[in-house]
Amino acid sequence: MNRFLVFQSDFGLVDGAVSAMEGVAYAVDGDLKIAHVTHDITPYNIFEGSYRLFQTVYYWPEGTVFVSVVDPGVGSNRKSVVAKTKNGHYIVTPNNGTLTHIHKFFGIEALREISEVTNRRKNTELSYTFHGRDVYAYTGARLASGTISFEEVGPELDLDDIIDLDIYETTFTPDSVTGQVDILDVRFGSLWTSITYEEFKSLGFAFGDMIEVHIFNNKTEVYKNEVLYGATFSAVNVGMPIIYMNSVYRMALAINQGSFAKAYSIGVGNNWLITFKKIVK
Amino acid sequence: MNRFLVFQSDFGLVDGAVSAMEGVAYAVDGDLKIAHVTHDITPYNIFEGSYRLFQTVYYWPEGTVFVSVVDPGVGSNRKSVVAKTKNGHYIVTPNNGTLTHIHKFFGIEALREISEVTNRRKNTELSYTFHGRDVYAYTGARLASGTISFEEVGPELDLDDIIDLDIYETTFTPDSVTGQVDILDVRFGSLWTSITYEEFKSLGFAFGDMIEVHIFNNKTEVYKNEVLYGATFSAVNVGMPIIYMNSVYRMALAINQGSFAKAYSIGVGNNWLITFKKIVK
Amino acid sequence: MNRFLVFQSDFGLVDGAVSAMEGVAYAVDGDLKIAHVTHDITPYNIFEGSYRLFQTVYYWPEGTVFVSVVDPGVGSNRKSVVAKTKNGHYIVTPNNGTLTHIHKFFGIEALREISEVTNRRKNTELSYTFHGRDVYAYTGARLASGTISFEEVGPELDLDDIIDLDIYETTFTPDSVTGQVDILDVRFGSLWTSITYEEFKSLGFAFGDMIEVHIFNNKTEVYKNEVLYGATFSAVNVGMPIIYMNSVYRMALAINQGSFAKAYSIGVGNNWLITFKKIVK
Repeated sequence: MNRFLVFQSDFGLVDGAVSAMEGVAYAVDGDLKIAHVTHDITPYNIFEGSYRLFQTVYYWPEGTVFVSVVDPGVGSNRKSVVAKTKNGHYIVTPNNGTLTHIHKFFGIEALREISEVTNRRKNTELSYTFHGRDVYAYTGARLASGTISFEEVGPELDLDDIIDLDIYETTFTPDSVTGQVDILDVRFGSLWTSITYEEFKSLGFAFGDMIEVHIFNNKTEVYKNEVLYGATFSAVNVGMPIIYMNSVYRMALAINQGSFAKAYSIGVGNNWLITFKKIVK
Repeated sequence: MNRFLVFQSDFGLVDGAVSAMEGVAYAVDGDLKIAHVTHDITPYNIFEGSYRLFQTVYYWPEGTVFVSVVDPGVGSNRKSVVAKTKNGHYIVTPNNGTLTHIHKFFGIEALREISEVTNRRKNTELSYTFHGRDVYAYTGARLASGTISFEEVGPELDLDDIIDLDIYETTFTPDSVTGQVDILDVRFGSLWTSITYEEFKSLGFAFGDMIEVHIFNNKTEVYKNEVLYGATFSAVNVGMPIIYMNSVYRMALAINQGSFAKAYSIGVGNNWLITFKKIVK
Repeated sequence: MNRFLVFQSDFGLVDGAVSAMEGVAYAVDGDLKIAHVTHDITPYNIFEGSYRLFQTVYYWPEGTVFVSVVDPGVGSNRKSVVAKTKNGHYIVTPNNGTLTHIHKFFGIEALREISEVTNRRKNTELSYTFHGRDVYAYTGARLASGTISFEEVGPELDLDDIIDLDIYETTFTPDSVTGQVDILDVRFGSLWTSITYEEFKSLGFAFGDMIEVHIFNNKTEVYKNEVLYGATFSAVNVGMPIIYMNSVYRMALAINQGSFAKAYSIGVGNNWLITFKKIVK
């Protein structure tokens, strides 16, 4: 193992929870290299947790162990697992949908359930609510440090046991493509759609094209405009909308130096659909 | 020393203050392993600083050096100290109450005053307002790296010199226990009380019991309800309140996937008392 | 090289962008030591990015490589550069004004343009919008790890090619000194002015002096008061204003344990001027 251990959660960084997890990990092996995706996942939002892993795991060295704790069901019968991805990364997480995007877009090679008897910090049997510290951080650290092997995590599960959230299936007409608004580029207010670059390109769009954009909230159209498709924001003036490919090779919609999401009060999920349509002259 | 240096402050991460402290520390020893509890302590809130150390220090390897800077009295006659805990951790801090919880619940073995003449960065005599960088980070780094020993920090102080904040003393009746709301699990809005698991259990409560909960803001009752005591949130439906033991073995009150603090506008401190009372049938 | 790689951006930490940059860097060299100034630069605010580097770079060991990505012009003809400072630090950044304060106050020794053909991650030619990950983090990591030398970054540029933002030039009368409000100590609401300690002292001010303070928003005076000049906040009572020297040796204005900026709705930039004037008895 390369000793990289990367945490993600919805705990925030305002209290000591994340630092307690780090301490537990370093107590396993003081030479671990600990980093963080984000701890600002919207509380209980498993889709967001899944998406942020999708956005980052790929870029880390093979063998990196990720610990993701977005766990509204702590204490329920959801299982604690470690997934080994086809690219050779490990993800320690409740099996509650957090693996969705990695499963679909990168692939998972094997899945094991964490045996909580052997892979739990000593003397924490009374503590039921902080699995992040007592089970996940501890197991992640033991795996990242080579203290245990992947096989020693616990019994193998069937890949069919992976809990997947619904992913929106892109739909097409001869002159349009429709997906959902998956997530926001929060800081800049851009809309990241579920439509891949390949799906978008299949309609023949090219840089410089004006494209008809429709956004629907349920059945209500909330935005309709002709928008330029460009390589970067600088293809349009400040304050103008633009269609572009984002950093995970999906189509996105922004206002140059503005916030598209705020400007039109756009949300995310399968109630927010977006259509790119060819303009017929 | 194990070279772990862990920072905490009320500086936030929006500007460069924390990074300047890190730079100063790495300039002392490039092989330090630097981490952070949180820098989002409410400005000037010493109680919160003390509590976050209580929540985390224990989980770090023996020998870890913590630097905590919540220092409304910078430049006053409060002393700069290093405490050695009974568990073998070091805490570099103004002696202003930040040591309260560690002192009471884990114990402090020795206390030394920082000699600011020898333990201050060179050429910073003109800078009076950033002790965090020029004295605390610098001293913490020198201690964590073994450049100086604990004895070389400065003269020993009497343990009676430790400034302690008031800690609420739990009170009992034959069928109830009362404490204060110490702090919030900020992100999830749960109330963390000062009542320990042992104190709570001494009344004979068991999982599955319905318990009468009273919350008072000064003399005014602001919440009264019968609430389930459960092992984890999943013992109740989404949106329902629950009494549980938190990750530091104290009793807490939450709404499953909601925010108890927001729902009832509950605050913290000794104006916010909470009583758990047996239900008499 | 000392292997220190320090990131700064306006990306925030809510999504996975910063972690993707870290992953890319560690994939270049797993022994890098990665840290962060801040990722909460106000979106697109180049002045703030420049100032935060000014506040921190100096404290890091010689040879440290900084990667600063505040890049409203991504995709425009602004150049990607690496600057070598006179103190031996390296700054990887778009040449858009981010180097202003370092250039003026510490000095830049050499500037090179990043050759994006050789210093770009493989197979990212289609990705136009995340230079932070594909060019800056990658180049910074290769430089910090010694994989490439400074010379191998790309062709040398003239120092006159450095894009500088306007810095307010302090003005004097026989009994007053005027500068702008450069930036806020965000967390505490203090005003950090562009007036240096030396400029201020040239008027003969000493600790304990009462000084007339005027603040103007454009032509409108928004604050006028006599304020104490002290070494630290504890020179005045809680709630009282104070003039002090900040941690970067410039004059600042605060309310002890309050927020000056909020109290008087003060902003930053060259529309917000501040004058310190001797009181004539």
